[in-house]
Amino acid sequence: MRDGGHRDSTRDVERVPRPEVRQRHDELRLFGINACAAAFARRPQDVRKVYLTEERIPQFKRLLAWCVQQRLGYRVVEAADLAKLTASQHHEGICLEMLRQPPLPLRELLARLPPAPQPAVLVLLDGVGNPHNFGAVLRSAANFGVAGVVLPPDSSLTLSGAACRVAEGGAEVVPLARPQGGEDMLAALRAAGFTIAATVPRDGVSLYAATLPARTAFVFGAENEGMSAALIASADRRLTIPGTGEVESLNIAASAAVLFAEHYRQHGGAA
Amino acid sequence: MRDGGHRDSTRDVERVPRPEVRQRHDELRLFGINACAAAFARRPQDVRKVYLTEERIPQFKRLLAWCVQQRLGYRVVEAADLAKLTASQHHEGICLEMLRQPPLPLRELLARLPPAPQPAVLVLLDGVGNPHNFGAVLRSAANFGVAGVVLPPDSSLTLSGAACRVAEGGAEVVPLARPQGGEDMLAALRAAGFTIAATVPRDGVSLYAATLPARTAFVFGAENEGMSAALIASADRRLTIPGTGEVESLNIAASAAVLFAEHYRQHGGAA
Repeated sequence: MRDGGHRDSTRDVERVPRPEVRQRHDELRLFGINACAAAFARRPQDVRKVYLTEERIPQFKRLLAWCVQQRLGYRVVEAADLAKLTASQHHEGICLEMLRQPPLPLRELLARLPPAPQPAVLVLLDGVGNPHNFGAVLRSAANFGVAGVVLPPDSSLTLSGAACRVAEGGAEVVPLARPQGGEDMLAALRAAGFTIAATVPRDGVSLYAATLPARTAFVFGAENEGMSAALIASADRRLTIPGTGEVESLNIAASAAVLFAEHYRQHGGAA
Repeated sequence: MRDGGHRDSTRDVERVPRPEVRQRHDELRLFGINACAAAFARRPQDVRKVYLTEERIPQFKRLLAWCVQQRLGYRVVEAADLAKLTASQHHEGICLEMLRQPPLPLRELLARLPPAPQPAVLVLLDGVGNPHNFGAVLRSAANFGVAGVVLPPDSSLTLSGAACRVAEGGAEVVPLARPQGGEDMLAALRAAGFTIAATVPRDGVSLYAATLPARTAFVFGAENEGMSAALIASADRRLTIPGTGEVESLNIAASAAVLFAEHYRQHGGAA
């Protein structure tokens, strides 16, 4: 590793201590070009430290200028250092230590939405721990304008750097929310005009057999465990994506893309 | 590791030499429960060796009986051995060494299809090297009844164990094909009634603005490199999946799921 500071603009850069593999709980180590660019564009004030390879410097000039201006440390490192720091080979030469955004109170997310009966899509994630699936859902959600991801009150799901990289910037666009103070999640969603739709591999109503409600909260569960039986039982609709039956089901990220796309097709305005 | 043979039915099992990490070119090391179960169900004659953990024995009793009957070796191993053998943590306790299925001649794949103008979907993969994306495309393809994946004559793409595991059995359902003997791939597809549709992140015709041709060959390229400009230029249609523009594009596997689903919705029969 060598220190930043080989450009005029970086002369007064604060020295950054050697990166530790441990992260602080309130910080998230983002990596990947699109994930880092999106995070800097949307919340530069949350950047704490920057690590990048020499070849990324031209591309992230504005980020480095921001570091200098804010007296934040940055460090030019080797790819191998980034691999260790991010625990990934997919760092693409850049890593930002950012303050985590705490999940929004569900109430606040709902207050931001266009009022019922205007179309809106939410996602209710029940235990999708695989960061690739979580990230892929966020990327598709951002593409199709999903308004937020709601986590059950007891969910331990948090964003990881790997999920954010797979989301390619989508994690900055789609807010996470969580009910607070004992708020009844499903009741709050229904009061805001949402139909709760669980996707099941078989025996649900075909996705193409009926119109999707303009305001839909799609429930997704962990791929292997399936989603909690209680949540399926309390859903207003059980949808099945039709298919040949040659494989047991679609991957959760593929299901999410198909459902978001179909809602967008039906309600998403001028295509 | 210890040898199989602790059940009556396996008494005469042939001894399997210790697994080598190297694979033969004509063999493929499959892993994952669904991938292995699908391969055994469809082509038991291609099984060469079996490695599994003790806890998988009850589930794969028929496979082991087949091994005994065919005098094929199997071996009960530890999870750590499988991790080494498959170079993956996602082996799920089972690994089959199988003969590879060589790609079909394109001509043969086309001859198997229902005749034009009956609906059919093919996929033209141009350099999708990431096994997770390749496997995810195969899983969605199997779900939506895609008839085959066509590889350009110069493609070096082959199935890997990782791609097959992600495909969850889909790799056994959707055949790979390749033009042979200098056959013109696009001309052959068009002669069989297919419209060649390339997906582009922007400036194509919206997926929802027009009816998809009943017989469509969707072209997908490698995520970062994009697909070859020549192939895009020679496509009959350029389609764009609409969206907010908040992320640059959908992941290739998500795009594939959305396109297959939309074709299925329009042409896939009784939903």
